[in-house]
Amino acid sequence: MSSPAVIAISGGIGGAKLALGLYRTLPAGTVTVIVNTGDDFDHLGLRICPDVDTTLYTLAGLANPELGWGRKDETWTFMRVLESLGGESWFQLGDGDLALHVERTRRLAAGERLSSFVADVARRFGISADIVPMSDDPVRTRVGTADGTLDFQDYFVRARCEPRVTSLDFAGALAARPTLGADAALRAASLEAIVICPSNPYLSIDPILAVGGMRELLDAASAPIIAVTPIVAGRAIKGPTAKIMRELGVPLTPLSVLRHYGTLLDGFVLDERDRNDSSAFECPLLITDTVMKTLEDRERLAREVIEFAASLRGRRAART
Amino acid sequence: MSSPAVIAISGGIGGAKLALGLYRTLPAGTVTVIVNTGDDFDHLGLRICPDVDTTLYTLAGLANPELGWGRKDETWTFMRVLESLGGESWFQLGDGDLALHVERTRRLAAGERLSSFVADVARRFGISADIVPMSDDPVRTRVGTADGTLDFQDYFVRARCEPRVTSLDFAGALAARPTLGADAALRAASLEAIVICPSNPYLSIDPILAVGGMRELLDAASAPIIAVTPIVAGRAIKGPTAKIMRELGVPLTPLSVLRHYGTLLDGFVLDERDRNDSSAFECPLLITDTVMKTLEDRERLAREVIEFAASLRGRRAART
Repeated sequence: MSSPAVIAISGGIGGAKLALGLYRTLPAGTVTVIVNTGDDFDHLGLRICPDVDTTLYTLAGLANPELGWGRKDETWTFMRVLESLGGESWFQLGDGDLALHVERTRRLAAGERLSSFVADVARRFGISADIVPMSDDPVRTRVGTADGTLDFQDYFVRARCEPRVTSLDFAGALAARPTLGADAALRAASLEAIVICPSNPYLSIDPILAVGGMRELLDAASAPIIAVTPIVAGRAIKGPTAKIMRELGVPLTPLSVLRHYGTLLDGFVLDERDRNDSSAFECPLLITDTVMKTLEDRERLAREVIEFAASLRGRRAART
Repeated sequence: MSSPAVIAISGGIGGAKLALGLYRTLPAGTVTVIVNTGDDFDHLGLRICPDVDTTLYTLAGLANPELGWGRKDETWTFMRVLESLGGESWFQLGDGDLALHVERTRRLAAGERLSSFVADVARRFGISADIVPMSDDPVRTRVGTADGTLDFQDYFVRARCEPRVTSLDFAGALAARPTLGADAALRAASLEAIVICPSNPYLSIDPILAVGGMRELLDAASAPIIAVTPIVAGRAIKGPTAKIMRELGVPLTPLSVLRHYGTLLDGFVLDERDRNDSSAFECPLLITDTVMKTLEDRERLAREVIEFAASLRGRRAART
């Protein structure tokens, strides 16, 4: 008999915080994190998967607490020498981080799937959760801007999110299929909750939802689907979410996020700072402190989200 | 009018010592080092050129004095993490060294020639000598052993030169052509000396001589060709030269080296420790201290070799 299982759907840094809370709160082997790969790109001849790597480092306890990305106890000799050689230095790669990219590039070139590589790294890092890329097929987030269409990292890192966003698309998503791990986790009868982490809905979650067949798997899943707000008191917790929502003409409110996800959701986690807006929500709400500063914050929010999901199980059954 | 020019023909560590002596002794812009690329290989998806890189680091003052290879002030985070990922760790790559391999691999993949990349790196490193790979075409030294045929680095690093050598071949050498830089330097009318550095004749110099057309260019060159002995007092200065000579059934003497190079040479530099053997040499000899421990040793030997070459210029003219 399999244990009750929970799926986290996540982008990088912001989402990984809640994924870590769930991982530390729930029994070993019961958490699956389905991670965005729309930000993946090839740089310096290496395949780089920022959100997957952030999730690996975060759950392994290897994340860099000062930077918020990359590995702790990192050195930067490679980057320093690369600059002296006139190499491209706009995307910072630590020496230890580089090992993951070099080894992944080598193994993908030898025919291994990304999901298999990630599972092996997670095992070597001692992570007792399943970290599964959304797809083994290439999906690339492209950002339509006033300056033309940019590859995601060109927009996000090189251009520091400065160009005005006019549209987003996820090249390859229609033809892509969910990884076997994502598929199996979403079909599991033991599933208790699907948690959409407080990642950027447009840049981090939408690519996952756009993968061919993913939406159908979510709609057919036996557990309630809950989104945790990435917008608190008129601000985005992390990254360019607020800027993008403004540029796309969307009000900077949690309600916009709820409407964006639409019928996918069975429940929504609203921050207590936005309690006054709660009457506008027509779905079940958990109102709590969603701002995760400490490890304890992550674990408390995770526990509350799981309890909230348990309370929604009947509702989900009715819908299905 | 071009300055008098000198060519050093060199492998890695041992040869680069004399190349550095020549570089420091002679006027800027007058030294060309033609470097072995038979040791080059692809590892972890990266193109690695050990002899070229050792030459670059040595002439730039960036070489690691403790290890004898790689960069000084190096860090090793990449290697440590790569091991934790189960990656291949038999070939040690420092974090800064890695930048050279990643950038080279990227630029070669984009269509640039190795010789162009190396010239650019030399310029960025502030080196006022021409460091030219022997060829832009692939030449791969393969070592026939009692255990079968091995790629060079498999023999040299992974198997630590332990298998008994039965033969050597340089795959691709016949079809390869000298680089434009090697060709131009060897044809230069201003050429004053060609110095075969005290590298391993079998592993480091023979691949250079095997490049299609290289031998003809050397034979037609206007300057005397001098070899500096890599064998002193019955020992090899560096690396597996002695072991290979024994296994190939060649007496471990400087005379064996002279006979190996044969009619290519106009003069030979014998170590003073082998003075008693000098009567057996039928070519002009410089007898001196060839063991280079200090920077002053390198510069003194370089000056003596250049003077020796000057004394042979008439002889070379007669031969040509």
